[in-house]
Amino acid sequence: MIDIGIIGGSGYTGGELIRLLLQHPKVRIRTVTSRRLAGIPVTDVHRHLTGLTDLDFATPDPSIASACEVVFTAVPHGAAMNIVPELLAGGTCVIDLSADYRLPQQVFEDTYKRQHTDPRDGGAVFGLPELHPEVAEANLVANPGCYPTGAILSAAPLASEGSIEYAIFDSKSGVSGAGVDPSTTSHYPNIAENVRAYNITAHRHLPEIVQELNRLDRSLNNIYLTPHVVPAIRGILTTAHLILNREQDYDTALGLYTEFYKDKPFVRVRDKIPTLSDVRGSNFCDIGIACGGRRVVAVSAIDNLVKGASGQAVQNMNRMFGLPETAGLLTPPLSP
Amino acid sequence: MIDIGIIGGSGYTGGELIRLLLQHPKVRIRTVTSRRLAGIPVTDVHRHLTGLTDLDFATPDPSIASACEVVFTAVPHGAAMNIVPELLAGGTCVIDLSADYRLPQQVFEDTYKRQHTDPRDGGAVFGLPELHPEVAEANLVANPGCYPTGAILSAAPLASEGSIEYAIFDSKSGVSGAGVDPSTTSHYPNIAENVRAYNITAHRHLPEIVQELNRLDRSLNNIYLTPHVVPAIRGILTTAHLILNREQDYDTALGLYTEFYKDKPFVRVRDKIPTLSDVRGSNFCDIGIACGGRRVVAVSAIDNLVKGASGQAVQNMNRMFGLPETAGLLTPPLSP
Amino acid sequence: MIDIGIIGGSGYTGGELIRLLLQHPKVRIRTVTSRRLAGIPVTDVHRHLTGLTDLDFATPDPSIASACEVVFTAVPHGAAMNIVPELLAGGTCVIDLSADYRLPQQVFEDTYKRQHTDPRDGGAVFGLPELHPEVAEANLVANPGCYPTGAILSAAPLASEGSIEYAIFDSKSGVSGAGVDPSTTSHYPNIAENVRAYNITAHRHLPEIVQELNRLDRSLNNIYLTPHVVPAIRGILTTAHLILNREQDYDTALGLYTEFYKDKPFVRVRDKIPTLSDVRGSNFCDIGIACGGRRVVAVSAIDNLVKGASGQAVQNMNRMFGLPETAGLLTPPLSP
Amino acid sequence: MIDIGIIGGSGYTGGELIRLLLQHPKVRIRTVTSRRLAGIPVTDVHRHLTGLTDLDFATPDPSIASACEVVFTAVPHGAAMNIVPELLAGGTCVIDLSADYRLPQQVFEDTYKRQHTDPRDGGAVFGLPELHPEVAEANLVANPGCYPTGAILSAAPLASEGSIEYAIFDSKSGVSGAGVDPSTTSHYPNIAENVRAYNITAHRHLPEIVQELNRLDRSLNNIYLTPHVVPAIRGILTTAHLILNREQDYDTALGLYTEFYKDKPFVRVRDKIPTLSDVRGSNFCDIGIACGGRRVVAVSAIDNLVKGASGQAVQNMNRMFGLPETAGLLTPPLSP
Repeated sequence: MIDIGIIGGSGYTGGELIRLLLQHPKVRIRTVTSRRLAGIPVTDVHRHLTGLTDLDFATPDPSIASACEVVFTAVPHGAAMNIVPELLAGGTCVIDLSADYRLPQQVFEDTYKRQHTDPRDGGAVFGLPELHPEVAEANLVANPGCYPTGAILSAAPLASEGSIEYAIFDSKSGVSGAGVDPSTTSHYPNIAENVRAYNITAHRHLPEIVQELNRLDRSLNNIYLTPHVVPAIRGILTTAHLILNREQDYDTALGLYTEFYKDKPFVRVRDKIPTLSDVRGSNFCDIGIACGGRRVVAVSAIDNLVKGASGQAVQNMNRMFGLPETAGLLTPPLSP
Repeated sequence: MIDIGIIGGSGYTGGELIRLLLQHPKVRIRTVTSRRLAGIPVTDVHRHLTGLTDLDFATPDPSIASACEVVFTAVPHGAAMNIVPELLAGGTCVIDLSADYRLPQQVFEDTYKRQHTDPRDGGAVFGLPELHPEVAEANLVANPGCYPTGAILSAAPLASEGSIEYAIFDSKSGVSGAGVDPSTTSHYPNIAENVRAYNITAHRHLPEIVQELNRLDRSLNNIYLTPHVVPAIRGILTTAHLILNREQDYDTALGLYTEFYKDKPFVRVRDKIPTLSDVRGSNFCDIGIACGGRRVVAVSAIDNLVKGASGQAVQNMNRMFGLPETAGLLTPPLSP
Repeated sequence: MIDIGIIGGSGYTGGELIRLLLQHPKVRIRTVTSRRLAGIPVTDVHRHLTGLTDLDFATPDPSIASACEVVFTAVPHGAAMNIVPELLAGGTCVIDLSADYRLPQQVFEDTYKRQHTDPRDGGAVFGLPELHPEVAEANLVANPGCYPTGAILSAAPLASEGSIEYAIFDSKSGVSGAGVDPSTTSHYPNIAENVRAYNITAHRHLPEIVQELNRLDRSLNNIYLTPHVVPAIRGILTTAHLILNREQDYDTALGLYTEFYKDKPFVRVRDKIPTLSDVRGSNFCDIGIACGGRRVVAVSAIDNLVKGASGQAVQNMNRMFGLPETAGLLTPPLSP
Repeated sequence: MIDIGIIGGSGYTGGELIRLLLQHPKVRIRTVTSRRLAGIPVTDVHRHLTGLTDLDFATPDPSIASACEVVFTAVPHGAAMNIVPELLAGGTCVIDLSADYRLPQQVFEDTYKRQHTDPRDGGAVFGLPELHPEVAEANLVANPGCYPTGAILSAAPLASEGSIEYAIFDSKSGVSGAGVDPSTTSHYPNIAENVRAYNITAHRHLPEIVQELNRLDRSLNNIYLTPHVVPAIRGILTTAHLILNREQDYDTALGLYTEFYKDKPFVRVRDKIPTLSDVRGSNFCDIGIACGGRRVVAVSAIDNLVKGASGQAVQNMNRMFGLPETAGLLTPPLSP
């Protein structure tokens, strides 16, 4: 059994890590920390897990590095960089769910408007395992953002061919993406029966998308992201409006996507357009496409808390520890 | 034109007062106050009213009493009692949407755990105009709570006959009843796809229900309220489980209800069970019933922000100023 | 008072016409027809209107043409063309809410896969009054589709300048757009907590958008529409991804939009991004924009049943009969 | 491995059986039948299971009895009685999810208004394993209805003490309880933002509740059920308004419930009021209580498709085959 620790266990990604790891046949959760809730049973916060775990929240403690083979850091952006160096120095592997290690220092600082205190450009692997098999050798994985996961996977096959001229990602996210703390945006009367576009031209997840698509096609310049919040708890549906430099027929495109993801157990390329309920609660990314002239519309559906966060983190862990990629992660989606 | 003022215009009941009064043929909104937002256009907060009003929020000011014939106080419980005496002294009428004047002093203080600084037992009229025609002569009206409005109206005809042994009100409320400020309860992921029972045996609206039903039947002792929040923005559906001291057939009961409310333009007794969408956005209270043995189940539907708050306040104003009771209030419900 | 008739009054657009016209100061509803429901009270179907109208559904009858100055046809696509010629021959004006008269014959037949039995190219005015002042002189108005209304208005100012290279409309519609009849798509478990893209490259509303934008810019070729259904009863939020042939700064763009719509009472150009709740239940089309390089993202919000259907039909009627454009249509939106 | 068959696999309970059994360590799904969909991949209907099963729907066939050790019949009421005799005769065990074997013949016929063609009073065990340990020896189990499961479990401890005078169950159900076929009730615009009471005094699940509570307290006469549909896909929250023949304090009541369910792994008695999201997707029944005088309000939360249907069926199977009761059923709830 692999001993694991979770730093920052009181939020949604922390709760999902616990939910998923409780079902994992090869791990043992040693500690879940929360500075604010230390001493409180985990199930006082994550009530749905009552009876499934006896853990109390612990105070974060340097000894976690020696007690755990891998530590998940599920803390706010800017906080991880203060924790990770010590963890790595202590000899444990780290999978960081914050944004702190996803981008080169300069891009990070421009995007998040703060100084990076632990720049290690090239020292962390971007944890999108479908495109980064090198996570298997990493000791620090930067788990991608939720929007980038759905957006990058929807466009990668065509980007890798160098055929995209414009990539316009119109994303529709569930409200849980904004976290566990109440806010005006998450106030039920403000989002029920509603759709809200925000950070229309400058969402801070855009640089991750640009970085990864440019790894596949260095000449792809026109990459845009417009996120929306929709009345759903979980899920991101990304509608990728891709304008190509050539005509594209459907069968060829479907073949391209199918081939590109043929050994990727969590990407299900389908001849139907996916919806959020196809993947709810699961680590799948479902993709369907439509074609017309030089235009391809690729639609991807993920659960933002699973493939967009904690499930992907477990998938990375599986790769890092030589386990089957799907270990503990094949729980079927919950539909309807 | 009647000059009116609104003290506390930034919340939902304030916004609804403005929405409704803008459609009223006989009033002019002179001022809408908000200490916090003074100087800001009303439509910066109530964006849907853009283009329909040019008012800015004003600082609350004693001169409002002389400038306005009636003032609506839409402030938190406990705040109204600090404002109302001065307003009344200034010669204006007051319709208070808080709980401050609904109950006798002792009941208020027991229920709200605070001292009353302006007790005037008997000096305010309980503003449920279907049961209190004396609002027409009042200069201070205590607008009822949202749960009491739906509960009292659902049971009043049978209570007035003295035939109820147990009155168990199981109410399902939309989230807007909790107000405009985000909270854990109103956080979309916590209430979407969910139902939440709360204050199960001791909601502070219960004393209003007891007070009003006991006016109709002094011997009715067993009155209970269990409120729930459901995933809806607006509306309260109250399922009144009434156990009678005798058998009750449907036709007689329907006749009783129809007769009881025959001159009440906002109570629609129907031979169908109402739903929230039948009344959404309107001042109607729809009531339907079902009977079986000694049991009557009466179901009432209101919009909590209209008949349960601001619409009822305007209805009270109409009565106080000798206007047709329906003036400005017959906007059809919005359905679907 | 203008006598009006509604043919096909049992669906959502029929119900909305009744709701809106009941509030109109200058009209009288003479008849509402439904072949299937003839003899039944209108309020048996539109329960929310109980107490507000005593009409029964009538059998459609040629005499309607002589009894009414204007008839609204709210019937399925393909049915209007069988009714309208007789109505016009009888001397009444017609506002058709179906697709039958929006497009030239050939485009209609290609799009709707059926023969047109009453082609009168140029004989009907496309009823988007902001762009077609000639509705004032029309006796047959083809009321636009819901998606086209939001899409065209969001892009028209830039199209009129000839600066758009790509116009990609990503629209999010409430479920009522699919009509009153239950279907797999409208089944609550299939659309709650979900987002569904459909007819991704070939929605039949696209030709209307192309037609109208090409009236403003004949050289604009790349016009795309991808509709989605979101968990909302009402509303369409259209995110118009506009790629221009030049850079565009925000202030200039906002000025352009403001100027373009300066005399249009139902288009509210705002310096904020609108949401569905800003316009719910009302005839407003709210528009906000964001700019970045050669890209403008214009977001429009309408209520699909009002500005996207019945409200716009009443607006057209107002124009046709020389009434103030806003007569009966300034009911504030219902928010929250 | 236990070979199992599912007759009627295209609906929600069928889909849930497949979802749950795919995670079960000791079973193998041999066949899933659907007369209408024979030959079609199961994942064409249950799209979320894509990649997790290769089964095609099969035509129902008598050989299923010899190929399977247990067959789940997930067919409409009235259909099971035509299938079950043959299955039992073929030597397989049957867990029937319909209502056909839950009630004595006369009660069934009065309730469902149809003749029973396979009456075997006493020959089937009512499959609520918390109250019926004899399922372990059954070869025919009648899986309870969804409302009865939540209602009976919420009141059983007090009923077993003989202290209930009135038991009024006010239940709030998700829409999936109405099945996979679209209907007026399940039409999104009719149920979103709404609450609908139905079959207020005579729901056909009531006789199951009466039967089971009377097994615990023969003298309990006043048992009522009022079901509601709320805007949720899954779940039933039952608010049991229990009027006792004596006063009841909270601590004693909580102790009673805790003791009553102490060896029941799927009933979680808690000192908090549960909500639907605490149990979503899981086989748990969470119960919390509140007390006041002679009144106890017990609130139970279940997932109607799991503990209220397919999960309970698997739980029954575990008991019938000597497996741990929780085998394959401890997947954590999905929250938020």
